[in-house]
Amino acid sequence: MKSQIVTFLIKCPDQKGLLAKITNFFYEREFNIVSCQQYVNSIEDTYFMRIRLDAAEAKMSKSKLEESFATLAEPLQFDWSVNYGGKKLNVAIMVSHTSHNLYDLLERHKEGSLDCSITMVISNHNKLKPIADMFGIPYYHLPVTKETKTQQEEQVIDLLETNKIDLVVMARYMQILSSNFINKYPQRIINIHHSFLPAFQGANPYKKAYERGVKLIGATAHYATEDLDEGPIIQQDVEPVTHESTPVTLKRIGADIERMVLARAVKNHIQNQIIVSGNRAIVFPEAGE
Amino acid sequence: MKSQIVTFLIKCPDQKGLLAKITNFFYEREFNIVSCQQYVNSIEDTYFMRIRLDAAEAKMSKSKLEESFATLAEPLQFDWSVNYGGKKLNVAIMVSHTSHNLYDLLERHKEGSLDCSITMVISNHNKLKPIADMFGIPYYHLPVTKETKTQQEEQVIDLLETNKIDLVVMARYMQILSSNFINKYPQRIINIHHSFLPAFQGANPYKKAYERGVKLIGATAHYATEDLDEGPIIQQDVEPVTHESTPVTLKRIGADIERMVLARAVKNHIQNQIIVSGNRAIVFPEAGE
Amino acid sequence: MKSQIVTFLIKCPDQKGLLAKITNFFYEREFNIVSCQQYVNSIEDTYFMRIRLDAAEAKMSKSKLEESFATLAEPLQFDWSVNYGGKKLNVAIMVSHTSHNLYDLLERHKEGSLDCSITMVISNHNKLKPIADMFGIPYYHLPVTKETKTQQEEQVIDLLETNKIDLVVMARYMQILSSNFINKYPQRIINIHHSFLPAFQGANPYKKAYERGVKLIGATAHYATEDLDEGPIIQQDVEPVTHESTPVTLKRIGADIERMVLARAVKNHIQNQIIVSGNRAIVFPEAGE
Amino acid sequence: MKSQIVTFLIKCPDQKGLLAKITNFFYEREFNIVSCQQYVNSIEDTYFMRIRLDAAEAKMSKSKLEESFATLAEPLQFDWSVNYGGKKLNVAIMVSHTSHNLYDLLERHKEGSLDCSITMVISNHNKLKPIADMFGIPYYHLPVTKETKTQQEEQVIDLLETNKIDLVVMARYMQILSSNFINKYPQRIINIHHSFLPAFQGANPYKKAYERGVKLIGATAHYATEDLDEGPIIQQDVEPVTHESTPVTLKRIGADIERMVLARAVKNHIQNQIIVSGNRAIVFPEAGE
Repeated sequence: MKSQIVTFLIKCPDQKGLLAKITNFFYEREFNIVSCQQYVNSIEDTYFMRIRLDAAEAKMSKSKLEESFATLAEPLQFDWSVNYGGKKLNVAIMVSHTSHNLYDLLERHKEGSLDCSITMVISNHNKLKPIADMFGIPYYHLPVTKETKTQQEEQVIDLLETNKIDLVVMARYMQILSSNFINKYPQRIINIHHSFLPAFQGANPYKKAYERGVKLIGATAHYATEDLDEGPIIQQDVEPVTHESTPVTLKRIGADIERMVLARAVKNHIQNQIIVSGNRAIVFPEAGE
Repeated sequence: MKSQIVTFLIKCPDQKGLLAKITNFFYEREFNIVSCQQYVNSIEDTYFMRIRLDAAEAKMSKSKLEESFATLAEPLQFDWSVNYGGKKLNVAIMVSHTSHNLYDLLERHKEGSLDCSITMVISNHNKLKPIADMFGIPYYHLPVTKETKTQQEEQVIDLLETNKIDLVVMARYMQILSSNFINKYPQRIINIHHSFLPAFQGANPYKKAYERGVKLIGATAHYATEDLDEGPIIQQDVEPVTHESTPVTLKRIGADIERMVLARAVKNHIQNQIIVSGNRAIVFPEAGE
Repeated sequence: MKSQIVTFLIKCPDQKGLLAKITNFFYEREFNIVSCQQYVNSIEDTYFMRIRLDAAEAKMSKSKLEESFATLAEPLQFDWSVNYGGKKLNVAIMVSHTSHNLYDLLERHKEGSLDCSITMVISNHNKLKPIADMFGIPYYHLPVTKETKTQQEEQVIDLLETNKIDLVVMARYMQILSSNFINKYPQRIINIHHSFLPAFQGANPYKKAYERGVKLIGATAHYATEDLDEGPIIQQDVEPVTHESTPVTLKRIGADIERMVLARAVKNHIQNQIIVSGNRAIVFPEAGE
Repeated sequence: MKSQIVTFLIKCPDQKGLLAKITNFFYEREFNIVSCQQYVNSIEDTYFMRIRLDAAEAKMSKSKLEESFATLAEPLQFDWSVNYGGKKLNVAIMVSHTSHNLYDLLERHKEGSLDCSITMVISNHNKLKPIADMFGIPYYHLPVTKETKTQQEEQVIDLLETNKIDLVVMARYMQILSSNFINKYPQRIINIHHSFLPAFQGANPYKKAYERGVKLIGATAHYATEDLDEGPIIQQDVEPVTHESTPVTLKRIGADIERMVLARAVKNHIQNQIIVSGNRAIVFPEAGE
């Protein structure tokens, strides 16, 4: 294997000796452990690990490594995945009318701070095409009506499959995806919701925030699941506001929170920092990355 | 009138010339304007003012001032109140088992950073009596059961009335007050709820926060109204948390947020910084106070 | 005068009746007061006001208004300025190699959230030209060496004067401007420094922050003065960091702080929210704007 | 060994196989690894580990464990320490006039959220004795003048030694300790400084913060070293402030930051979360504790 960072994500029942067994496995095969992060959920007796390896001196092929690791994994009941750092994830961004998240992601991508390939922007409107054009990213305009929803989703899925998309980022795409769509991409669709969930689920959160007179507003990035706004939360943040704020100013303040929160969540996903367990997302911090 | 800070709080329909008219009124009567804060709610066309006056050179009596101000107020449809700084508010704290808010309020009171008279602690349990004793504050233990609820509330109300209590602070008092009780003290009961409302209303918010996998937890201080956890929000704050947190650690982190949030809200009330409008609390910032 | 927001900024010795006198002045001339913010510095006995007026019903010309206001201002020793909302400020951005602030400002400008005209980008390097091109903003490449510094500054000043630039934003321009330059634009040059000043003045603040082992890093936007990194602070913010951070990761985290802090400071300037007093910047919050 | 949490802190040159070797060591001796946190400083090629073990099933004595671990440690050049959870640290608090940190620490101690034994309060003034009395903690009043400084420090040291003090907390003790004193307690004296260091070192930081017109103020808890305010930083935090703040209000806002920051730092120390490296403090986060 060439010099590259290999990342294993592991989830299993908690049991004695896990750390020693896993680290030995890699040590014996001449992988250098770059970082190793663990989390034990003592309520559910579950063990989580994110381990990053430098494969420079390892002599195994990928298939041999995986085969060999499976022998360790099976008796210990690992639910595991491995990512070889060499290949960038293909990302599609879906948008409607709102531009700030799109700008932000395209700029970070262009500047090299999001280590993935954003290969397309898909929208049910034509409005944001000039932004995709500025950054030289293909823009697919696929309008949708109540009647054509199923058909339009099929077009979208077709695009995603043809282009081998690994991650879909709903950067203020204001359509509810069908269960059929969502189940095709489990833990591979990230949505940004413009409130600190579970507060203000559904439509018009800034208007609701104004009416409730809250003293802070927020945004939440989460994996999309069948239950709207109920998926595992990856990132959240808030800013203080005052009675002076109107729904319009809340929207403006919120835009900056949404940008930060979505960019961080996409980065977490791309860097293999996340393990989902039930409805909770374990998000390991960066480890000197 | 002696040298003291007189604070007027005014709410009225927005209209031209309000600021000029009000400031002239006080200028002509030789009140020095120490600070003047306004807020216009342009959605509801409503005007709010908090004006603080130095009465050192004013020659009017309180009754003459109020009579005179009423003549200005009536045609302009003011909903107004005045507070003469000389007298400290009498405050009662209600608690059950949880001690951190009680400690915090008593300490701030003792150190002079909460400018009021905390004259009693009322509890349905005996557990926190030693804390009240440490600070030399009378502690009333009034146990409550489902059957004795009405009777116990009457005892509490009796205590509050006999002692001329101006403000009731529910510092983690884990009983739901009856509408009868609450309506006796409109905008004079402050409650602390251990979540960033409207998320996690009702019981066990930290457990719910753990289960939902949120990435921040918070606390909210609000005026108590008939609808539980729905009253006007005075203060809110949050702290970031991670997947590592259990309900137990969330509780511990939350305790420090609760302390800050409740102390700030009580201070806002005591310093006449709040005007309630519908379900929203206008909280003017301190003006060099 | 047409319907527009007129903003007066006033600074004067504190004295009785100021608020009444000023608001009367405008009320009598049929200006509607949209917002009125004051601040009294009781240490220096100085009074500050920002008052925003709706001139729709006022019948005066600008010159008549100013002449008339001067009669009020003189005996009360006002240091004052007035801004008529109709005309957007002309802004020049100066950069070197770092792109994130440039992207951020150009995007906010394009999206309409910075209400000014960014009319040029000036740089001592050619590197960021493609970004200016993307947004269709003229880019002037004016290289500089130790020997050509004076001459290059003259070219810059020439550009600024020819284009009637009102505000210069140093968005990570890594050259120290001469006193001559700076004194030509008092309180009209905003600089972003990548630390929470006064910590880590001068070069390489992220490296210094790593070496000192601080647990938070920040950014500061301030008016440029002759003393490097000593000018009046407009905006500051920080983010928590840990021992895991290297100078490289601090830089990455810091970039997002720098973007927010500089954008807010430019907005404060454009919206006439700032009065400078000595080395302190009074920054009035937005008043329902 | 009884059931208890044993914590090893390790620092050594980075090298291959460290994690496997260390975890194997404990696994083979039947220690259950409760948590294992690592940090690699790639600039200095140094490796840090904090590993917490459940010793319930381990059959070794403490001395045997340490002897055995030394055989592993020596060839790998470990700088290591071990803490056996059974015994609480003895803590002395030193104060002068300011009470908020003292209140806060004594309250947390009393409520059980600081897992140590605060066994004494030492002060150069008598002012805060009533607070120590409230909490039933012995208070030693040891006045100091320029002339008696050496002598008073000897009295303090005597008290600390007689009472086997493990940690000294300078909770706003406004005397500069001599090098002699400080070197007796390396990484065992925690000081709170009322600014976000390295800004505003030395006396009167709030006054300096006002004069500089900063938009945030902070506090820093650090280990005391010979260079005043230059020791390894354990915790820092800030709060936003505005131009409205005077040195007096900054002090009031700052008090709450100081309380949080010092309490967190003391907790970090007590829970063996800190490894000092040069002038930087590696502070591992809590691991499900």
